[in-house]
Amino acid sequence: MDAPYKQLEDHFQRLSHVAHALTFLQWDQLVMMPPRGNEARSEAIAELSSIYHDTLTDPALGDLLEKARSHPETAEQSASVSEMDREYRWATCIPTDLVKAKSLAGSKCEHQWRSQRQNNDWAGFLVNFKEVVNLSREEAQARQSCRPDQFFTPYDALLDLYCTGDSSDMISGIFTTLKKNLPPLVSEVVSKQAGRTRLFKGQFIIESQRQLNRKLATLLGFDFEAGRIDESSHPFSTGDVGDHRITSRYRESDFIDALKATAHETGHAAYEGGLPQKWKHKPLGQARNMSIHESQSLLFEKQIFLTKPFLNYFTPTIHAHLEASRDYSCEQIWLNSIKVSPSLIRVEADEVCYPLHVILRYEIESALINGTMEAADLPEVWDDKIQNYLGLSTAGNFRDGCLQDIHWTDGSFGYFPAYTLGALNAAQLFSAFRDQHGDWQEMLSKGDISPILNWLEEHIWSKGRLLDSQELIVKATGEPTNPGYFIDYVKTRYLQESY
Amino acid sequence: MDAPYKQLEDHFQRLSHVAHALTFLQWDQLVMMPPRGNEARSEAIAELSSIYHDTLTDPALGDLLEKARSHPETAEQSASVSEMDREYRWATCIPTDLVKAKSLAGSKCEHQWRSQRQNNDWAGFLVNFKEVVNLSREEAQARQSCRPDQFFTPYDALLDLYCTGDSSDMISGIFTTLKKNLPPLVSEVVSKQAGRTRLFKGQFIIESQRQLNRKLATLLGFDFEAGRIDESSHPFSTGDVGDHRITSRYRESDFIDALKATAHETGHAAYEGGLPQKWKHKPLGQARNMSIHESQSLLFEKQIFLTKPFLNYFTPTIHAHLEASRDYSCEQIWLNSIKVSPSLIRVEADEVCYPLHVILRYEIESALINGTMEAADLPEVWDDKIQNYLGLSTAGNFRDGCLQDIHWTDGSFGYFPAYTLGALNAAQLFSAFRDQHGDWQEMLSKGDISPILNWLEEHIWSKGRLLDSQELIVKATGEPTNPGYFIDYVKTRYLQESY
Repeated sequence: MDAPYKQLEDHFQRLSHVAHALTFLQWDQLVMMPPRGNEARSEAIAELSSIYHDTLTDPALGDLLEKARSHPETAEQSASVSEMDREYRWATCIPTDLVKAKSLAGSKCEHQWRSQRQNNDWAGFLVNFKEVVNLSREEAQARQSCRPDQFFTPYDALLDLYCTGDSSDMISGIFTTLKKNLPPLVSEVVSKQAGRTRLFKGQFIIESQRQLNRKLATLLGFDFEAGRIDESSHPFSTGDVGDHRITSRYRESDFIDALKATAHETGHAAYEGGLPQKWKHKPLGQARNMSIHESQSLLFEKQIFLTKPFLNYFTPTIHAHLEASRDYSCEQIWLNSIKVSPSLIRVEADEVCYPLHVILRYEIESALINGTMEAADLPEVWDDKIQNYLGLSTAGNFRDGCLQDIHWTDGSFGYFPAYTLGALNAAQLFSAFRDQHGDWQEMLSKGDISPILNWLEEHIWSKGRLLDSQELIVKATGEPTNPGYFIDYVKTRYLQESY
Repeated sequence: MDAPYKQLEDHFQRLSHVAHALTFLQWDQLVMMPPRGNEARSEAIAELSSIYHDTLTDPALGDLLEKARSHPETAEQSASVSEMDREYRWATCIPTDLVKAKSLAGSKCEHQWRSQRQNNDWAGFLVNFKEVVNLSREEAQARQSCRPDQFFTPYDALLDLYCTGDSSDMISGIFTTLKKNLPPLVSEVVSKQAGRTRLFKGQFIIESQRQLNRKLATLLGFDFEAGRIDESSHPFSTGDVGDHRITSRYRESDFIDALKATAHETGHAAYEGGLPQKWKHKPLGQARNMSIHESQSLLFEKQIFLTKPFLNYFTPTIHAHLEASRDYSCEQIWLNSIKVSPSLIRVEADEVCYPLHVILRYEIESALINGTMEAADLPEVWDDKIQNYLGLSTAGNFRDGCLQDIHWTDGSFGYFPAYTLGALNAAQLFSAFRDQHGDWQEMLSKGDISPILNWLEEHIWSKGRLLDSQELIVKATGEPTNPGYFIDYVKTRYLQESY
């Protein structure tokens, strides 16, 4: 019989193969599959998910973890066992009946939400949503009681699924700072930009945009021998070792949104591609969490692609591919791309307003899960907050208010903070990089981003899950996530317009 | 506890979900996957194959089959259990060690064959090939001894994997007739066609070919809501309920090969798409065997697409899409497309010579497996037969002789006859259809193939595996596979040139 740790490695290797199958079946479902294939695909995905769950909750795994934990041979092995244990505990600590009930309630709520949102039907949605909230509360309590020493509130236990290492205590402090600083900044930027941005006009041929986006991805280090770019209604990134799949989306009336999406998804793929090969197939070799993942994608999109020096380098390529873009100088493309304007919809928000959308959701979802707010009060609370944070109202407009996001419909509470933590981490990481590379603007103006890639690989990608989220940020930048870097970055970019 | 048959249904439904995953992972590997994704993909496929094998050989399944077999509730259930039993027996009747040894030897031989073929390295190939032949003999004997009442030779047991229902006894009789009739026909056709066919010249734009091939597939009944056409180095067809994936391949210097491939693969997809929904997820609801499958693809390619009336209807569409094709009349396109010319390579052979390539392989592989010939004698026997059947020599030219095919490299003995049985069945089925539809030429000349689709659905597709291969053919045409129909078809098309 192999040593317990070796047996654990084999077990997680088998799991990773099943996860590989799920990954690419889901990619295909979103990118390639014809409509009538959905039934057979959904059944196959459910079957593989069940095989995955059964393999991960195999009681023999609990015994092996116990043995391996008591005799770790190296610190690395200890960290590896700890990450395996985390996966095992998260899969075993909720009763199977609850898992099934939540999955059913979530599927039903999400499915009906698609038409309810269109029909602005809050009352209809509420019927299903109450059930999702109740079951999510049960889930949160079950997870919390699995590690009561670690989670002070039920919501923290859900947060851990996406932002492990970032507590609600820390997040609340950060968000308080942002709530104070961002609204006045938004007003300042809006009046500074007034009359200077203009909508893109013209026809930007889709096939040419595809070629242009491939050029951009290549410049940003995307390796087409180890990945693909395709199209989907919402851009996303997925894949496995040696095969990173990203998507973008194109419209004829605009070219910058697709480029931003491509840069963003290339950042996600770069992180995945830079994970340590020596730990592949093991939890230790996976990406840390979503607040780090989102920092990589935002860093590629905002701190590299949308800088003046990089755009200056890249604009001739845009002009070469898209005839109608030649009416716009680099400076104008840059200014149009960073236009700030408070609006109701999160996914269309600019990066200055975006955190306010997230804070609103964070405050609501933590209250819902911790039981200090009820589902029925959602529209009123939403309207109140959006008035306070962005000066807009959603009274009676559920569609563009509390019904706009998919996340809560299937009970994915705890995800939203990752977007803003990611933005903050991106600003902070890039600031640390700049401190060490005084010539960063010159590099970018030559389209040379290899020093950035090397720096990120060294400080983030190569670490896998060896460090927790805040340890990673501290080691790379000298301090935990600090909103000051993001606020400085907003001022420098949007008020001084210096890059 | 559910009744045994219900439990069997559940078990095979789970198997079908795992098979779905394997199907689309393999499709992706051939059509979409970037090169560096191969390692992770191969590992995942191996893992899922192992899960599939373990689920299929679960001893509990043997007990259930025993119980269900002794108390079938209906004739249909009895047929269903019998097909389940066949799958179970084929998976359990070979020792696991032999399965692994053959898989390893096959992978090694196939892998090295790719360069050995290029280097004309027979001696190098023989080292690995001997092992493959030995293990395939062992496999054949093990399979034969599992059903000694059914298989008179070891080779018949391998044949059953692909051509179940078509015995070597029957095939030998048919092939004797073809061997007598085809060589003189080849000579006659070659002299009749001399100087009348010409190579296509011009540039046929690939993107326009893609559009044209989509038009053809649609005309032939392919439903893009339930399928896709992509590209791969060798055209193939695969998929599952509601999601049929076919591929074609394009070159700028020719347009007819892609159209033939599209018609061919559309035939495979039509069969799969027409299988009985009531038996989905069960062996009974699958395609009968490869000699029936190949009959459907060849019927679409040769008996529908390449007929004069259909091409007459379709030529204006070709001309509209491909400017350079306008130099060729329908008659010239037709004649060029059916050019007969003996050559060394099976996959490039015309349909009159093709059976001779298959017969050569059939005679050799049955002798190899039954132990009346040794691997070392392959080149000499090959050269001898190709001289006899096609008047060509491969002495010293292993690359274009016995090293040309992939099938034997991993031990897939017993597959080749399906190609020719398919061609014979196609001619015979279409002859039966014509007898019932005197206006078939008029139909095709309007591009209306729905009566053919309806006829095939009624006689072949809707039957799944309810009947065995020859029962299907007898019920549809009044007699078992008879080479006379194919010979008549060759004479009518190639000598009389009447359609």
